[in-house]
Amino acid sequence: MTRILAHYLIETAGDPRQAAELMAGEQSAGTFVKVPGETPELLEAHGARIEALTLLDTVDAPSLPGAKPPKSPDGQYQRAYLTLSWPFANIGASLTTLWSTVAGNLFELNPFSGLKLLDVEIPPEIADAYPLPAFGVEGTRRLIGVTERPLFGTIIKPSVGLTPEQTADLVQTLCEAGLDFVKDDELQTNSPHSPLAARVAAVMRAVNAHADRTGKQVMVAFNVTGDLDEMRRGHDIVLAHGGTCIMVNMLAVGLVGVTELRRHSQLPIHGHRAGWGMFARHPLLGIEYPAYQKFMRVAGVDHLHVNGLQNKFCETDASVIASARECLTPMPGVGAVVLPVFSSGQSARQIPDTYRTMHSTDWLYLAGGGIMAHPQGPAAGVRALQQSWEAAREGIALADYARTHTELAGALERFGA
Amino acid sequence: MTRILAHYLIETAGDPRQAAELMAGEQSAGTFVKVPGETPELLEAHGARIEALTLLDTVDAPSLPGAKPPKSPDGQYQRAYLTLSWPFANIGASLTTLWSTVAGNLFELNPFSGLKLLDVEIPPEIADAYPLPAFGVEGTRRLIGVTERPLFGTIIKPSVGLTPEQTADLVQTLCEAGLDFVKDDELQTNSPHSPLAARVAAVMRAVNAHADRTGKQVMVAFNVTGDLDEMRRGHDIVLAHGGTCIMVNMLAVGLVGVTELRRHSQLPIHGHRAGWGMFARHPLLGIEYPAYQKFMRVAGVDHLHVNGLQNKFCETDASVIASARECLTPMPGVGAVVLPVFSSGQSARQIPDTYRTMHSTDWLYLAGGGIMAHPQGPAAGVRALQQSWEAAREGIALADYARTHTELAGALERFGA
Repeated sequence: MTRILAHYLIETAGDPRQAAELMAGEQSAGTFVKVPGETPELLEAHGARIEALTLLDTVDAPSLPGAKPPKSPDGQYQRAYLTLSWPFANIGASLTTLWSTVAGNLFELNPFSGLKLLDVEIPPEIADAYPLPAFGVEGTRRLIGVTERPLFGTIIKPSVGLTPEQTADLVQTLCEAGLDFVKDDELQTNSPHSPLAARVAAVMRAVNAHADRTGKQVMVAFNVTGDLDEMRRGHDIVLAHGGTCIMVNMLAVGLVGVTELRRHSQLPIHGHRAGWGMFARHPLLGIEYPAYQKFMRVAGVDHLHVNGLQNKFCETDASVIASARECLTPMPGVGAVVLPVFSSGQSARQIPDTYRTMHSTDWLYLAGGGIMAHPQGPAAGVRALQQSWEAAREGIALADYARTHTELAGALERFGA
Repeated sequence: MTRILAHYLIETAGDPRQAAELMAGEQSAGTFVKVPGETPELLEAHGARIEALTLLDTVDAPSLPGAKPPKSPDGQYQRAYLTLSWPFANIGASLTTLWSTVAGNLFELNPFSGLKLLDVEIPPEIADAYPLPAFGVEGTRRLIGVTERPLFGTIIKPSVGLTPEQTADLVQTLCEAGLDFVKDDELQTNSPHSPLAARVAAVMRAVNAHADRTGKQVMVAFNVTGDLDEMRRGHDIVLAHGGTCIMVNMLAVGLVGVTELRRHSQLPIHGHRAGWGMFARHPLLGIEYPAYQKFMRVAGVDHLHVNGLQNKFCETDASVIASARECLTPMPGVGAVVLPVFSSGQSARQIPDTYRTMHSTDWLYLAGGGIMAHPQGPAAGVRALQQSWEAAREGIALADYARTHTELAGALERFGA
């Protein structure tokens, strides 16, 4: 029978195998004491199993407080990679039960001074119960009409405070400047100062007029994050106005919110990970993105935020690129390739490095302030992105290309080279 | 106009006020650079405000990696309490937008080497849009028929692996032993080896037969965690069989899952926080329970897990009791008092301390292994809990009371005194 595997990084002052066994017990048929009914047959059929335990280095201080024993005899804390497996019969075709099992009551088990879920292997037996992404990379390219290069976009800034009409005026400028994609900020949902229905109507008038004039349909991701009925209504409003994308704050609505939105949606879903820092910032606590994003891909999100190189947050470039590559790697037996979205402190300056490290053009690159704050205005900000891409594609250093391209020169001066 | 307040603990190597201003900007109208349209009027109307900033101690190592600057000139990291506020117009009557705002893209802002959301004040303008808990403490007591004392319950153990019939046999034993409450483990949902419909049918036959014989309706919290339709069907099955409670893994289904389940439910909702360690275990990252549980109360959960004294996890007793008291504290202008649930490594031994520190009898006390693994069997495990409560109520030391009460004596010997 299929077993489901999850991979962890652990740290303990005790014996790593004993700690792993306790964890396997707590997350399946055991508890802190032996109970009647916990027969050898039951444990064999339903117990979680240690599939691999690889010792790593030791450290001389615990990564997290509260573990017991607080110290090992030699004062060292052993780190290890651990792989556990569960029988499908424990879990069934359910993302929420899978979540409760691989990311449930284990982060605070007291043998551990560190515990992070690194990855999870979601088998077709679970994924087949979900509709998966309907658009992904190809569907998004088809709607935008761009096949050969990365997609370039922006975030409405200021994030909050603009009226629907002001937002539409800005979107019109951005369409005329030649962007592929525009999105609401994660903070801008269906708020009293910019109700979604009014914002969609105003913005789509500008977007549709631009499409009529030029043949280019700019994709706008409207943030429909809200209660379920509100999200469905939001989707229907976007669809009715000829919009081609909706956005959701995945961590705010949760797994059921994302799943239900997908079941209703006829549009690509742009997945924003606002709040992600809480899950991932500590190296020995929480969840790494390769694990989390698989849940969202099976739930049916088409675009996934992965932060950006040299970002305004605390994530390393290596972690950003690993997340982005993961989005483009088919899940075995499932597929569900999705479009990685670079965002956070991005401007013209990071495009060549992004291209070099991705070895692919299948990505969406978002600059918010990096377009809006261009010294010659947003349209010049967009031109600077395009020029940066030309330089990257041709293998010309940005500084050289900037000598003959004033918008790129302005961006490098403003945002750093 | 109403402003919404959130309270944080922060740590930074830089100037705390500058860091707080950046955070306020990022979570409202600003971004990493000044953009056109960010007018003084817009900032006045929609910017987040620093309401209070109280310096605490300094520490000589950063709590989290990745912050910039990595070090202050004196090598110290300043901690501080910070209160931010947002205008209602930014957020509207939406829990998901509130979540995106107070717990969104801030945990990884790079001026911070530590950032934790401690509390949030959810005003009636938001709470009034939600149905709130339908049962809470009083409704739960009414269904169980117990008014004067704490409620005592257990968790089915082994957590997974029992067939529906084996589960029903165990529940019958527990009913006969005099428990008020029984719940599924958080790992036991609607799995292939114990489908919810079969489990509910078998268990409720035993519970209803016991009620017919004795007049006592034991409350069983069936774990309906799943996709939304699955949860609703699960609720309907429980209701149809005369069940009186459903359980949900709040972190697995997320805010929309909990909210929608409440909108459908005619039964008390037992909120399990499996996975909570990821949010709270680090003292300078994530969310404290007083903040999180307010979202769940407004969403409409009736019972909230708070861990237990001397638990098998890493949480301190002070934190456990603070969480439990918070559940019983009405939210200003909202109310929404809910039943705190003590669980995790609990047995007869922690009841007197729990009573002493709570100054209240409004709590549900769950022992799983602490009942099932009693040396004289589960029925004796239940008697031991009852005897421990008698001792606590009368102010008699457990060791003294155990001299004349053999079940209590057995529990203290097995689980520690």
